[in-house]
Amino acid sequence: MGATLAELAVRFGCVLQGDPAVRVSRVATLQNAEPDTLTFLANAKYSSHLANTRAGAVVLDPRLADSCPVPALLSSNPYATYARIAAELHPLPAIAAGRHPQSVVDPAAQVDPTASIGPNAVIEADVRIGPRAVIGPGCVVMRGAAVGADTRLAANVTLCAGVTVGQRCLLHPGVVVGADGFGLAPEAGKWVKVPQTGSVRIGDDVEIGANTTIDRGAIEDTVLEEGVKLDNQIQVGHNVRIGAHTAIAGGTGISGSATIGKRCLIAGQVGIAGHLSICDDVVVTGKTMVSSSIDKPGMYSGSFSADEAATFRRNAARFRQLDALARRLQRLERGGTHAADPAGDEQP
Amino acid sequence: MGATLAELAVRFGCVLQGDPAVRVSRVATLQNAEPDTLTFLANAKYSSHLANTRAGAVVLDPRLADSCPVPALLSSNPYATYARIAAELHPLPAIAAGRHPQSVVDPAAQVDPTASIGPNAVIEADVRIGPRAVIGPGCVVMRGAAVGADTRLAANVTLCAGVTVGQRCLLHPGVVVGADGFGLAPEAGKWVKVPQTGSVRIGDDVEIGANTTIDRGAIEDTVLEEGVKLDNQIQVGHNVRIGAHTAIAGGTGISGSATIGKRCLIAGQVGIAGHLSICDDVVVTGKTMVSSSIDKPGMYSGSFSADEAATFRRNAARFRQLDALARRLQRLERGGTHAADPAGDEQP
Amino acid sequence: MGATLAELAVRFGCVLQGDPAVRVSRVATLQNAEPDTLTFLANAKYSSHLANTRAGAVVLDPRLADSCPVPALLSSNPYATYARIAAELHPLPAIAAGRHPQSVVDPAAQVDPTASIGPNAVIEADVRIGPRAVIGPGCVVMRGAAVGADTRLAANVTLCAGVTVGQRCLLHPGVVVGADGFGLAPEAGKWVKVPQTGSVRIGDDVEIGANTTIDRGAIEDTVLEEGVKLDNQIQVGHNVRIGAHTAIAGGTGISGSATIGKRCLIAGQVGIAGHLSICDDVVVTGKTMVSSSIDKPGMYSGSFSADEAATFRRNAARFRQLDALARRLQRLERGGTHAADPAGDEQP
Repeated sequence: MGATLAELAVRFGCVLQGDPAVRVSRVATLQNAEPDTLTFLANAKYSSHLANTRAGAVVLDPRLADSCPVPALLSSNPYATYARIAAELHPLPAIAAGRHPQSVVDPAAQVDPTASIGPNAVIEADVRIGPRAVIGPGCVVMRGAAVGADTRLAANVTLCAGVTVGQRCLLHPGVVVGADGFGLAPEAGKWVKVPQTGSVRIGDDVEIGANTTIDRGAIEDTVLEEGVKLDNQIQVGHNVRIGAHTAIAGGTGISGSATIGKRCLIAGQVGIAGHLSICDDVVVTGKTMVSSSIDKPGMYSGSFSADEAATFRRNAARFRQLDALARRLQRLERGGTHAADPAGDEQP
Repeated sequence: MGATLAELAVRFGCVLQGDPAVRVSRVATLQNAEPDTLTFLANAKYSSHLANTRAGAVVLDPRLADSCPVPALLSSNPYATYARIAAELHPLPAIAAGRHPQSVVDPAAQVDPTASIGPNAVIEADVRIGPRAVIGPGCVVMRGAAVGADTRLAANVTLCAGVTVGQRCLLHPGVVVGADGFGLAPEAGKWVKVPQTGSVRIGDDVEIGANTTIDRGAIEDTVLEEGVKLDNQIQVGHNVRIGAHTAIAGGTGISGSATIGKRCLIAGQVGIAGHLSICDDVVVTGKTMVSSSIDKPGMYSGSFSADEAATFRRNAARFRQLDALARRLQRLERGGTHAADPAGDEQP
Repeated sequence: MGATLAELAVRFGCVLQGDPAVRVSRVATLQNAEPDTLTFLANAKYSSHLANTRAGAVVLDPRLADSCPVPALLSSNPYATYARIAAELHPLPAIAAGRHPQSVVDPAAQVDPTASIGPNAVIEADVRIGPRAVIGPGCVVMRGAAVGADTRLAANVTLCAGVTVGQRCLLHPGVVVGADGFGLAPEAGKWVKVPQTGSVRIGDDVEIGANTTIDRGAIEDTVLEEGVKLDNQIQVGHNVRIGAHTAIAGGTGISGSATIGKRCLIAGQVGIAGHLSICDDVVVTGKTMVSSSIDKPGMYSGSFSADEAATFRRNAARFRQLDALARRLQRLERGGTHAADPAGDEQP
């Protein structure tokens, strides 16, 4: 159980400072670390905790080596190195290959014998489940869908007909991939449903958070490229394309046919309007509304911070007069005298 | 498989321009159409693709007939006509009537013999399931609930006790109808739960997107009238009423006891406060907060667009001074000299 | 069935005004009350309905006793008293103890014999289910998780490995507790997953709304203290701590490592940034973005109300010039003449 620092240093390419025989068996925070734990320092904000840590070892930047009171594994990217070591110290529980007797697998499905099909999972006809894939309890994989090797569907995940998920993906509970997009044609005050005949294609190494939904395309497919990381409760509309290695935080909604570039960072509760495109390497801060295309990398914002309610309301009331205020300012600048203000322009 | 243009023209009331014997078997986009596909042009934005399309036929407005290089089905509402034809070319897979052996149906439930109950579906006592209704895998229909004829619950849908769903509805995976509304009475710094004794009534031809939640009423019912269309991840609070043929996009939240009129269009991530009413034919743009009643049809907005972060922050800092700025403007207009500004009014 | 007013007055500590023999059997609204129903008046907004009510009895404040045309149960906290009586008149249906034959319970799980395990529920190894707990249809309780006495998981709820839920909690359908937090370490333009080795601890008397998600901690646990009430579709990030008796409305998102105090009221669609803290007794209004810590009790806001779209857009365009407008105002105040404005400063 656990590993010595010598083993970890070799395995993860770190310079070891301290006793190579020290053994760590689990991870901890700097503040609450015990001698058998490994911890890390990646955020300067927490560096005050370094001096008093009781950890068995700390993964940290070489420049901080001198301030570390316990053994250290030095890495130029301590957070990523910590992540890899943590995965080794806390391995996922082994999953037994095979089908739970209370799973429902259609005879016309192709399930790799090394895959695991959990209790109450439903695998419909023409589905393909790859080697070592895990279909957790209560998951439903509809006809013609495909799940790649080493991909895990945690529990109560629904993959609708024909969607494909790549290798080494992780879909958390409640995820829905491939439900119909919101396609409606107006006709005489009512709506005609527009059949959603496309599907969803998800690349390798994609992670999708709990209760996130990804709609199938209207005609062509909705696409998540490799390495995309989605947090919980994100809504991805039909025919959206999300570029490789883009990460999106919880509660964000992406309207139909939006295209998002590679390596973007979209914070939580962002709204992205439909039929626009965002280029590679864009950062969008929390709760921002993106209503037109962004073609220059950089950071974009659009949300206001909380203020005391009375203050905020007073300013918000003025916002409703802002165009009028600007016109009044212009008049003054032009030397105009102060004529009677139009109603509503002033608030005593 | 498929249909000739002659058949489609007759069946869907279009004027046919071109060879009536051409046969189409599926739909495609203008850009990627093959000779065996049908496509459409409804958005002027895409008209540049018309000239080069290789489609078997295009559904389009008669005014564009001359610019169409391939056969055309002319319709005054090409999108709705396309939608109807697409539904014919891409029929839903046939569902076998009857109960899957691994479904759990209470003996006191009334399930029409033409209905389909999928694997791991649970139908509790006193439930009524109408003709040709489909209860997909993993769905739970609690005691006393009713599902109308031809309604489909895709998978992992939960209908709580006593809710009623009309005919020809479509509920996507993860939908929850009839969970308790958020009713809490404060008492001595704690909360007393207020029993939610109402239910939910959903009219005919309603579609509800994946992971959308609709709470049961506190005393009387939450109501969705006929033809309402809800996208994914919408939250509908207790005792809300949504008028017929209103469509609401993903991520929108509607607080308790709000009433929304007929034929409204509510965009995504909109927030609607409780105990207010919105009249018929109102359009609300994305991410808007509706905090008071709207009694005049029209379009309403309240969200800001993304800007470069540095610019947005500079303007947002000024917003926090906006009331003060307005007062300073007034002073100037009144010919006042510039007294020392109160702290915080200026930002060099 | 039902109860007499005499019984209710004694049991719930009310002063009775009117005939003690009147019997009520269910609750109703003031407007639609029948003689066999109990109703209440707690919101002055509805007091106009009191004069015409036909209820068997009204729970109301003693100061309104004289205006009540029917029997009254007088209480200084009519809403809480109503809530308690309603729970008595509308008891939850009895649940049969024991395991449904189509549940899947691991032999190494400890299930109290008085607990109820519904159809298609899955209880993995080392799970503990307390007395009278109800695990509804389709729920999945993963290895090592614990559910306290009298707690109910309605249906299709997922508790991931090792999470603990206290006593008398109520988790509505689609809730996911303990999915991985959004932990990613950047490395060479890709992401390394950071194992989420913490868990989730939920106190007693917590209610969690439909499709709400609560992530497990990265290293230490995510914590909901006793009496916390969460509405639907809330996202709680890893290592968040929510203080006792705080109530949060639907669609709100709380980023990782945020700490929220006790007795807070957070409205719907609020966004709370990560690594900040909000003190006790804070109220945040709907759709507000909280991006820095709040250390003073009070009410905080940050969202704008809907306006007619044309008006809003005009003002929003001016907002994009706001810093420039403020600088122009300063210049005028300082007696400066009106130099040529920088491009973009004016909008005719």
